[in-house]
Amino acid sequence: MVTDTFFDDTLAIDITMATLQSINYSIYFDNSLDELVNFVAKGDYSRFFVLTDENTGKHCLPLLKEKFGEDAKFDIIEINAGEESKDIDFCIGVWKMLIDFGADRQSLLINLGGGVISDLGGFAASTFKRGIDFVHVPTTLLSQVDASVGGKTGIDIDSIKNIIGTFTQPKAVFIEYSFIQTLPARQVLSGLAEMLKHGLIADASYWNLLKSSNLTVPSAELIYLSIAIKNKVVIEDPHEKGIRKSLNFGHTIGHAVETYSLINDEDSLSHGEAIAIGMICESYLSYKKTGLSKAELDEITGVLTSLYPAYSLNAENNEALYDLMLKDKKNQRGKINCTLLDTIGQCSIDNICTKEELFEALAYYTNL
Amino acid sequence: MVTDTFFDDTLAIDITMATLQSINYSIYFDNSLDELVNFVAKGDYSRFFVLTDENTGKHCLPLLKEKFGEDAKFDIIEINAGEESKDIDFCIGVWKMLIDFGADRQSLLINLGGGVISDLGGFAASTFKRGIDFVHVPTTLLSQVDASVGGKTGIDIDSIKNIIGTFTQPKAVFIEYSFIQTLPARQVLSGLAEMLKHGLIADASYWNLLKSSNLTVPSAELIYLSIAIKNKVVIEDPHEKGIRKSLNFGHTIGHAVETYSLINDEDSLSHGEAIAIGMICESYLSYKKTGLSKAELDEITGVLTSLYPAYSLNAENNEALYDLMLKDKKNQRGKINCTLLDTIGQCSIDNICTKEELFEALAYYTNL
Repeated sequence: MVTDTFFDDTLAIDITMATLQSINYSIYFDNSLDELVNFVAKGDYSRFFVLTDENTGKHCLPLLKEKFGEDAKFDIIEINAGEESKDIDFCIGVWKMLIDFGADRQSLLINLGGGVISDLGGFAASTFKRGIDFVHVPTTLLSQVDASVGGKTGIDIDSIKNIIGTFTQPKAVFIEYSFIQTLPARQVLSGLAEMLKHGLIADASYWNLLKSSNLTVPSAELIYLSIAIKNKVVIEDPHEKGIRKSLNFGHTIGHAVETYSLINDEDSLSHGEAIAIGMICESYLSYKKTGLSKAELDEITGVLTSLYPAYSLNAENNEALYDLMLKDKKNQRGKINCTLLDTIGQCSIDNICTKEELFEALAYYTNL
Repeated sequence: MVTDTFFDDTLAIDITMATLQSINYSIYFDNSLDELVNFVAKGDYSRFFVLTDENTGKHCLPLLKEKFGEDAKFDIIEINAGEESKDIDFCIGVWKMLIDFGADRQSLLINLGGGVISDLGGFAASTFKRGIDFVHVPTTLLSQVDASVGGKTGIDIDSIKNIIGTFTQPKAVFIEYSFIQTLPARQVLSGLAEMLKHGLIADASYWNLLKSSNLTVPSAELIYLSIAIKNKVVIEDPHEKGIRKSLNFGHTIGHAVETYSLINDEDSLSHGEAIAIGMICESYLSYKKTGLSKAELDEITGVLTSLYPAYSLNAENNEALYDLMLKDKKNQRGKINCTLLDTIGQCSIDNICTKEELFEALAYYTNL
């Protein structure tokens, strides 16, 4: 399935950074923490809870507390930072704290953190007493441009990412640019991979804009445009029956590499680092299968290898990676299913790839 | 909120036991297991799984296997019978088996069993890979007239019933009357409580019909009418914002008694036994608060005490029961919320009850 006509006017969106409308909720960019305070005040909530990790608890929660004022009463649920906290055991911990705090169906959960917090908090809220309201305040670049928009919640079991989850939309998303400006470089790079992906699958102009921008700290406008692209896709196809699969570019191989690294490496790859590898491999598959030109493959490979450190992969890892790919949610009837590029800015979904093709793509990366 | 005009034609439904239409799915009564085989054949499923417990695995699965034929290939996931299996730990077990069996998003889960199987299986399926299809084949009277219809899924944590769950509709429900005809008397009584409740909240004629029927093995028509009442309610209000709360009659106190018994008794009360106690207590509250007449209170108490064994409760249990009621999902802002009767066949929702009122209602039961 080719998606040629779907994305044609993304950059026509003005970048005054007006509030974006998503599926029955708003994504706020301007004075977003004040908007959060307004949202809570206007909502008929019995009480609210803030889910944080030890990092956002230290660096972002104080700003939230200041905005809500001294008299605001809310309980804080803090988990450890890191992907390990997305395991079902931590989700049970969040549920038990909501029980202990006496949360009722009129409670609101504010997810203050990166993708782990929004995925886990979204799942915990969407299933607690069959669903309480939640909003996201994403604090990393990755969660701003990816996890916070689109209504996918998820937790891991046995390190299988997002194997359990729901499609449940947040009631609002608050994008606070100041959180991004102090992020470590590696965290910026992790989010940047998804921004680059948005250009590759949907908008060559945005890809070119990214290439010519200072990406050490991406501008608020670049973040806005990235979210606007993702938002457009998920509005069209909330449950990933069609066009939303375009967002999976780089993720079939990338997720396998990410899980492999999580299991085997002391200093695991970040999501974006793994997805960058996945995008290089899947661009190679695109060159072999869906008409991406050699020049475009070289361009993508060049941009990604200049931004991301090389990761040591060799043929001995192939079978383990393949086993992980077989567990990918996107598979149908045991076949491994990739989103590939036709050209930069245009993709095609539902491409079945054979084991041999996938191994060849991994070899392309290894031999760079 | 009074519901007087909502239920007025239930018994006008013909009892030819035609397939009922629910929220985007059908409830089959006639040749239902053949309909199941048709459903699976017509569905574009990659594979299917049957969730059973050791009882349904022994008594009901053989009939299913016979219907599907010798060549049908499907995997069976068997759990222990009993409410304990609804704990999150067993749900994790079901998820892991689905992972190990290689279930993909095109898989179907058939829940063959009582309410534990349909609640747990529905939750596991609704969250596996963000949701796979599931159908219910309820094998107990209780699950036929209650759990299988309406799209509530749920699991327990720390014995708090259905504290975690989703609203997800099954893709079909298959009501097989032959499963009911061989049930132990105590299991029939457990389901009968919900049937009596349907009469009390919605339809005095149905209540009178039940009173004059042989209830040792309720007829297929009585079951059909009970499901028709419930189905009408859940179609109107799938997410329990209003009229669906009528189904909670007897359940505020009943659930607390059920959980208390599960924790403290070696031979715990069945759901229906606990709900019968809850209905007696909440009929007393209805007499005190919402206009149920003394004659009606006596009538309800008489019918329920003649059907259900007395359970030993005394004032020493009150605080523990109250603590359990405080954890009830139906509460709003810490207030305990009951559905009560205005008269037999008509109820009112959202009645806040004080601790003193609840204790008085418990004393009414104790002093019978």
